[in-house]
Amino acid sequence: MGFVEKFRGIRDKNQSMVCVGLDPDLDRMPDHVKAAADPIFAFLNEIVSATADLVCCYKPNFAFFGSSGRAGWESLEALTRSIPDDIPILLDFKAGDIGNTAVHYARMAYEKLQADAVTVNPLMGKDAVDPFLTYADRCCFLLCLTSNSSSSDFQRLETNDGLLYQVVARKAVEWSSGSQCGLVVGATHPGELGEIRRIAPSLPFLVPGVGSQGGDAGEVVQNGLDSTGSGLLINASRSILYASDGEDFVQAARQATIDLKAQLNVAAEQAA
Amino acid sequence: MGFVEKFRGIRDKNQSMVCVGLDPDLDRMPDHVKAAADPIFAFLNEIVSATADLVCCYKPNFAFFGSSGRAGWESLEALTRSIPDDIPILLDFKAGDIGNTAVHYARMAYEKLQADAVTVNPLMGKDAVDPFLTYADRCCFLLCLTSNSSSSDFQRLETNDGLLYQVVARKAVEWSSGSQCGLVVGATHPGELGEIRRIAPSLPFLVPGVGSQGGDAGEVVQNGLDSTGSGLLINASRSILYASDGEDFVQAARQATIDLKAQLNVAAEQAA
Repeated sequence: MGFVEKFRGIRDKNQSMVCVGLDPDLDRMPDHVKAAADPIFAFLNEIVSATADLVCCYKPNFAFFGSSGRAGWESLEALTRSIPDDIPILLDFKAGDIGNTAVHYARMAYEKLQADAVTVNPLMGKDAVDPFLTYADRCCFLLCLTSNSSSSDFQRLETNDGLLYQVVARKAVEWSSGSQCGLVVGATHPGELGEIRRIAPSLPFLVPGVGSQGGDAGEVVQNGLDSTGSGLLINASRSILYASDGEDFVQAARQATIDLKAQLNVAAEQAA
Repeated sequence: MGFVEKFRGIRDKNQSMVCVGLDPDLDRMPDHVKAAADPIFAFLNEIVSATADLVCCYKPNFAFFGSSGRAGWESLEALTRSIPDDIPILLDFKAGDIGNTAVHYARMAYEKLQADAVTVNPLMGKDAVDPFLTYADRCCFLLCLTSNSSSSDFQRLETNDGLLYQVVARKAVEWSSGSQCGLVVGATHPGELGEIRRIAPSLPFLVPGVGSQGGDAGEVVQNGLDSTGSGLLINASRSILYASDGEDFVQAARQATIDLKAQLNVAAEQAA
């Protein structure tokens, strides 16, 4: 099943726009989990079990596995195998390289790690994105306007073709003959989210930044929904994973996900 | 020893500007190597042994390891341990993410994989680069004007502050209080290489694209050298690794490296 079908199916089943970002940080895990043979997997497997009926996607963040070396890679492989088949996996590695290299990043994500979607940095242009587009049933989310404050260093530069993030959004529409592209737009820019939605009315948006980074969930929903009332994967990582650093971390993560899901659904009803 | 010292030491010892890109592609390796227990390591270890007296740097390309999954990660770890200590390792992963994630990419490169330098995609701005800069004795090469033809999609956009790649070059100078930044400038843009050298007179440049991608080595040297007659790491990957697909691949790789080294040194003498 392709990304779009998987996403729609689980979104409808779970009635959720919540994407849980899986950023395993050993320094923030409860002590009893750190003692496990594979603490990263043990921690995330608990998180997945506790939230699988509440989410529309899981987003493993490659850096947090890579920083543990080979052990981290093994944890990531185990994790991707353990996520239920009907929930899409979005591998967040923000890859971007010349064609013959991008082919290998696509193979890593889609063939070795069972991802349904990826994040891609578009700075190198179309030939760096093409190898991802050849997997027609997957989705590559291009960085458009990211949630961090330094996003303005380059992404907001005024070009002869509009602001840089607007150029990226238009290119994503142009390159996406079907539904192979999505966009990453930070929750910390709610006004621009609406503007980007008008440029790309039917692309899915991955929206990080509602949790620890302070973006307003209601504003994101109001501005970001597409005309069918969908098209948003709203990501929270730290605010769910580390809702508690005690033995109750599983319940705390579940409760944080329930709360975010409800907040988003209320906002969607108000926006409808 | 920091990146700059290592680079200068081996450049002087080997009298070379050649950086060998390590892009292990199982489909292009000789049959007898494919039969090894760890073919990626076996292949690259031969390449390193045959070229260690001819290069100024090795650049493992993460994608080509990642596409082999866990086995590829193990090969990469073995490779980084086997590269002689006096030759810098530049991990090419073109990472770029928000600060708390970039910390983990830096840890992956510098602590788990013994890299001396990395490539970083600057699109997300300074806070995505900062975690790399905190390793003051390493070097992060920011993508400035890449060798691929689609680099013009975004990197050549005219902004209110100059062409985008010029803005990146100026930011790299601004962010590099010591020598923590370098720039990636494709050999396929020799004219712009000279212009970027004027913007960033003392930063090291990683210059891919002289081999299979068709950049002219002589022009690169003429336009890219700094005022001390140095500052260039000129990368070739496929044209060295796959100079022959037969049992003579080691000799062929060595000869291709000797030829490129000589070509570059002749051009440098002419430019002096």
